[in-house]
Amino acid sequence: MAVYTHLGAEALGDLIAHYDVGALISAKGIAEGVSNSNWLIETTGTGDGGPQRFILTMYERRIDLADLPYFLGLLDHLAAKGCPVPRTIHDSTGASFRMEGGKAVALIEFLPGISPTRPTPAQARAVGEVLARMHLAGRDFPLSRPNGMGFAANAATLESCRPARLATIHADLPAMLAPAHAAAALDLDSLPQAQIHSDLFPDNVLMLGNRVTGLIDFYFACTGAMALDLAVTHAAWCFDETNAYRPDLGDAVITGYTSVRALEPAERALLPEIAKGACLRFVASRAEDWLDTPDDALVTRKDPMQFVRRWQFYAAEGARVLA
Amino acid sequence: MAVYTHLGAEALGDLIAHYDVGALISAKGIAEGVSNSNWLIETTGTGDGGPQRFILTMYERRIDLADLPYFLGLLDHLAAKGCPVPRTIHDSTGASFRMEGGKAVALIEFLPGISPTRPTPAQARAVGEVLARMHLAGRDFPLSRPNGMGFAANAATLESCRPARLATIHADLPAMLAPAHAAAALDLDSLPQAQIHSDLFPDNVLMLGNRVTGLIDFYFACTGAMALDLAVTHAAWCFDETNAYRPDLGDAVITGYTSVRALEPAERALLPEIAKGACLRFVASRAEDWLDTPDDALVTRKDPMQFVRRWQFYAAEGARVLA
Repeated sequence: MAVYTHLGAEALGDLIAHYDVGALISAKGIAEGVSNSNWLIETTGTGDGGPQRFILTMYERRIDLADLPYFLGLLDHLAAKGCPVPRTIHDSTGASFRMEGGKAVALIEFLPGISPTRPTPAQARAVGEVLARMHLAGRDFPLSRPNGMGFAANAATLESCRPARLATIHADLPAMLAPAHAAAALDLDSLPQAQIHSDLFPDNVLMLGNRVTGLIDFYFACTGAMALDLAVTHAAWCFDETNAYRPDLGDAVITGYTSVRALEPAERALLPEIAKGACLRFVASRAEDWLDTPDDALVTRKDPMQFVRRWQFYAAEGARVLA
Repeated sequence: MAVYTHLGAEALGDLIAHYDVGALISAKGIAEGVSNSNWLIETTGTGDGGPQRFILTMYERRIDLADLPYFLGLLDHLAAKGCPVPRTIHDSTGASFRMEGGKAVALIEFLPGISPTRPTPAQARAVGEVLARMHLAGRDFPLSRPNGMGFAANAATLESCRPARLATIHADLPAMLAPAHAAAALDLDSLPQAQIHSDLFPDNVLMLGNRVTGLIDFYFACTGAMALDLAVTHAAWCFDETNAYRPDLGDAVITGYTSVRALEPAERALLPEIAKGACLRFVASRAEDWLDTPDDALVTRKDPMQFVRRWQFYAAEGARVLA
C-alpha cells in the first residue's frame, strides 16, 4: 500500500485535461492498491452536476499492459449491467488508459462506501449476492484472461520457496507442499466459467450499511471457475479475528450467492477441495512475500499461517460446512 | 509519507459518531504527513449542505500530545481571522482531539487545492502575501511553543552526525559544521516574533491557480521570528528543479510578503544570514535522516546536499538578492 510515483500538480493537471471532467480541484495520494499508485482527485465537473471525484491509477509493476483492456473493459461491462463496480472514464480519444512518463494511467469512477473489517451476516450475504450477479453479468464479456494464480502456480511457488526455508517461517509450513500438488490436480476447467474477481477480500469491497456500493481492485480478475471465486470469498470473509470459522458468515455468503445463481452439482461437490486450494494460494503468495521481505522492512508482512489454519479447517470441516 | 495505523470501518464509524458531522460515507488512507496517519473521509453532513469532507489525523510519533492544543488552537485562531488554514472540528464535548487506542486523533477541515511543483511568480507572490497575513493574524494567539528546530539545535544535530559519517554522504558536508555553529550564534529573539509555520514548502501549500486555498501541516509551527519563516519559505520556493536560484520567484515571495507586512530594518539586515541558517536546518535534518535510514529502505531519502548548495547560494548572493 503505497504511492510509488510522485505526480506533480502540473503533470496531474495536464493529464486531466485529456478527459472531459473539468479542471482539477484536489488530488491526494491514497494508500490503496499493492501494485499501483492511486490518487483520489476532484474536478470541477462538467455541466450542472458540480464537482466530481475519481480515482486516478498509475500502474507500477506486476501489471502487464496487455491486460489493461481486459481489466478496464471488464469494469465498463459490469458497470453497464448494473453491477456495483467503478466505470473507467475514457479520454477525449476514447482510450481507457493513457501513457504518462512510460507508465499507464487510468481514470476510474470514485465510489462511496467503506470496507467492513468485522462483517456482519447481512453484509456477508450481500457480498455473496453481488458476487453471483457479477458472475452472471460477466458471462458475455468478449475478452478473456488466464488465471495467473492457478493451483498449479501455487504449488510451483511453494516448491520454489524450498521446505527448509518454509520451515524458518513455521514448522507446519513445509507440510503444505503435498496438498498444494494435490490441489494442482483438480480439474477446475470443466466447471462453469465466467470472469471472476478472484481476490474478493473485505478490503476490496465497499459497503454502506448492508449494501455493497463497490467491488474494487480487479487486478487479479481472470477467466475461471465461478466456484473458485466463491471459495476465495468464503475463505476471505468467514473467519473472525482469532481465525475461528464463523458459521453464520459462511452460511450467509453461500446463501447470498445461491439466491442469485444456483450451484451445479459438480461445483457443490468440489467446493471443499477448491476452498482448500484457495487457502493454499494465499499460503503460497504470503510465504513467498515473507521470504522476499527483509525482517526490518517497513512493510507489514501477512502471515501465511493464517491460511494454513483455514486450510486445516476446510480439510476437517469443509465437506460439512460447504455441503 | 504513510498510513501507519489501520483503522477499521467500525472504528472509524465509532469515532465519527462523536462529531456532529453525520454518518461515514467513505474513508481513504492518504499518503500525506510524515509524522501521522491521515484519512480523507466523507460524511453525510448535517442539515441541507450535503456530504462533507474532512481530514482525520492520527498522531503517530514526533508529536508531543502537550503540543496539540497549540497546533489545533492555532488553526482555529488563524481560520477565524480569515487565513486559508483548515479549522479543527471539535467533538460533542468541545474537545479538539480525542484519544483512540492510545493515540490522539483530530478531525480537520478538508480544503481544496493542489500543491504546485513548479510554482509561477504569481503563485510565489501569493504565498508570500498569505505568509505575512498569517503572521499578523497569529500575533494575538494566546499560546506559545518554542522552536524545536532552532539554529542551535541544527548545529547540535550536525555535530552528533560526526564529520567522518557526514563525509560518507558527501565530501562537502563536514564543512557545514562551522557555519552551523555561526548560525547558532545569531540573535533571532530580538527580531519581531509571531506564530510561524516554519516549514512552508510547496508541499504544505494548497492552491487553485494563483490563489492559496490552504496552508497545511502546522506540526513544526512555533513561536519565533517572522523573518525566519520568510527565509524558510524563500529557500523552499525559489530554486528550480536543477537547484538554480530563480530570481523571479525570489523577488515574488519577498514582494508578496512585504506588500502585507513591511520588514523592519533589523529583519532586512539579518535576512541573508537567516536564510543561510534556514538552509542548514534542512541540511542537518536530512543528513541525520540519511544516516539513520538503511540504503535499502523503501523510503526515499532527501538529499542534504540540495540545501548545502542553497546555503552556498545565499552565502555568495544572499546580501544582493535579499537586500
